[in-house]
Amino acid sequence: MSSGSFRASRRIRGHDPYLPGEQPILPGSVIKLNTNENPYPPSPQVEKAIASEVERLNLYPNPPACDLRHTVARLHDLEPNQIIFGNGSDDLLNLCIRCFSDDELSVGMMHPSYSLYEVLARVQGSEMIQVPFADDRFSLNLEAIASCGSNLFFLTSPHAPSGRVYRLAELRRLAATFSGLLVIDEAYADFAPETALPLLEEFDHLLITRTLSKSYSLAGLRVGYAIGHPKVIKQLDMVREVYNLDRLAQAGAQAALNDREHFQECLSKIIEQREWLSEQFHSIGWRTLPSGANFVFVRPETADKKFGPSVASSLFHHLATDKILVRYFPKHPLTESYLRISIGKQQEMVMLMNSVKQWTSKDQR
Amino acid sequence: MSSGSFRASRRIRGHDPYLPGEQPILPGSVIKLNTNENPYPPSPQVEKAIASEVERLNLYPNPPACDLRHTVARLHDLEPNQIIFGNGSDDLLNLCIRCFSDDELSVGMMHPSYSLYEVLARVQGSEMIQVPFADDRFSLNLEAIASCGSNLFFLTSPHAPSGRVYRLAELRRLAATFSGLLVIDEAYADFAPETALPLLEEFDHLLITRTLSKSYSLAGLRVGYAIGHPKVIKQLDMVREVYNLDRLAQAGAQAALNDREHFQECLSKIIEQREWLSEQFHSIGWRTLPSGANFVFVRPETADKKFGPSVASSLFHHLATDKILVRYFPKHPLTESYLRISIGKQQEMVMLMNSVKQWTSKDQR
Repeated sequence: MSSGSFRASRRIRGHDPYLPGEQPILPGSVIKLNTNENPYPPSPQVEKAIASEVERLNLYPNPPACDLRHTVARLHDLEPNQIIFGNGSDDLLNLCIRCFSDDELSVGMMHPSYSLYEVLARVQGSEMIQVPFADDRFSLNLEAIASCGSNLFFLTSPHAPSGRVYRLAELRRLAATFSGLLVIDEAYADFAPETALPLLEEFDHLLITRTLSKSYSLAGLRVGYAIGHPKVIKQLDMVREVYNLDRLAQAGAQAALNDREHFQECLSKIIEQREWLSEQFHSIGWRTLPSGANFVFVRPETADKKFGPSVASSLFHHLATDKILVRYFPKHPLTESYLRISIGKQQEMVMLMNSVKQWTSKDQR
Repeated sequence: MSSGSFRASRRIRGHDPYLPGEQPILPGSVIKLNTNENPYPPSPQVEKAIASEVERLNLYPNPPACDLRHTVARLHDLEPNQIIFGNGSDDLLNLCIRCFSDDELSVGMMHPSYSLYEVLARVQGSEMIQVPFADDRFSLNLEAIASCGSNLFFLTSPHAPSGRVYRLAELRRLAATFSGLLVIDEAYADFAPETALPLLEEFDHLLITRTLSKSYSLAGLRVGYAIGHPKVIKQLDMVREVYNLDRLAQAGAQAALNDREHFQECLSKIIEQREWLSEQFHSIGWRTLPSGANFVFVRPETADKKFGPSVASSLFHHLATDKILVRYFPKHPLTESYLRISIGKQQEMVMLMNSVKQWTSKDQR
């Protein structure tokens, strides 16, 4: 075979891709609490909308997804030119990196948070500045963010993997002191007591990203949106892949956004289970952080009150043996003693706690 | 409102996005021959596959789209590790740019061809080398390509917007002389007499991209794939957005690829109409290039045998008045006297020719 002499870009040499939670081929055979999916199917209206769109699949989709922009504008009481849609919110995070960072303009993020930010920055050849948390409750150090010098900053709020909620007043102080483009990644905000949306009226260097993957049960459809000042949206639109959102994604998202009743119902059930699960952990004396998301971040303890990486890892593997998948982030001191557990259906939460109790009662070496 | 002081990356300053053909909001109200869509709906199996996948939309899709890689491997008698799927083939073209070009590694393309290559290169901050054609029949200048010095080269084959077919022997000579990564964009190859696929056994610096948008009637679903050496595929996979292909796109593409009968039937009808339309133009003495695609590139002439930009533009506007959308590329001497007309259903081709004849019989000033 004849070989060429082409090279890979130095931007991707030694690059490690983002590693998602395991996606089992037969999802029905396990209790899947590892990627923060919604345990309930999407609105029945989604199925109808998609079925009626299939016959038009031979035609390209509407490039800007106009109808969706109008729907979200109504939902949040904004203008359509403040909104852009992406193939999942990951698409929009990538657009932010591509528009507002390069080898001269750096990016910042809280560390640890969503590791994709770093992956995307590396592919762009942008320096990533990792700002540490102020304490082990994932409190922000506003001064450190304001002075980090990045042109773009990603804040996951509520935070992942901890579920920590940042209040509006604190985010306002942050926006007032950080002068780059502040991207507040609100992937989990529908499960939280408040959102940064009111700040859009006060600051033009703020972008809020949302996903339909979690609260709208559409992880499999890849739809997210971002909200910001029209001048920022315009820049992102210029670099957006022209047909980034397919016809079925547009039709399905539209139906899901419009069925407010189904949305609220699923949300209530998930929040109820989250509070139940947190209470269960409290009752056995395990530390959890108050969660504003669809998961609980918990520090497992042995019967003799020991905790740490080996304890967390032991429970992780015990649960896996019981075909219960959760997520473990062993690489950082703030996360290595914890497990992140997505909120499932009531029965799944009961089975999880049964397995947890079985583990605590075992000789754990 | 408080303003930040963030800047856009210099890579996107003054950037012009790719401009697709017009997408009317009510596609039924026009004869749409401007974006090379397939006039027939996708296989009925697509609808069934999608309907049965909707209930799993709350779960993330399979990141590498494993089933699709296996299906395409069987289809082309290859190994799954030679294949990668994208959110449309545009996603894969962009991955090529991101993996194999940067401010040091340049990109090459034939000019004019698919203008997206240039748009993608600009956003990456990569120099684009435009190689001119050898003549007005869009013949390749192999020496000019081989010596252009780019690390990556895009060749649209069959060519767009001309439909020109490059034969396997010529592509083999090209691969033997150009030492960078040669991307043969076979978006239209299913409509052509041959493909570059046999060259994959001979060269490891060759990547072939395909789309399901045209020949599989799935422009609205955004599915494409690329075929190449496992080491090239591995690089592209590292930079690929982890969930780039949603569940419905995976299920629908699978069904479309497996229904060979529907595929062949649509293909035959389109090729039959293409030959009929070419013959119609020949019979009135208009120049067309032999097309290996689902469109015809034709040079309109007035009744007194004049041609040129004003003549092409005149017919373009006449057709638009008749609600027939075609594509006109006025920016290059090789295309400014031509129109590109996508192949539609028989009835649409008849209506098109009626409108053309009405135009030729008018006083055209």
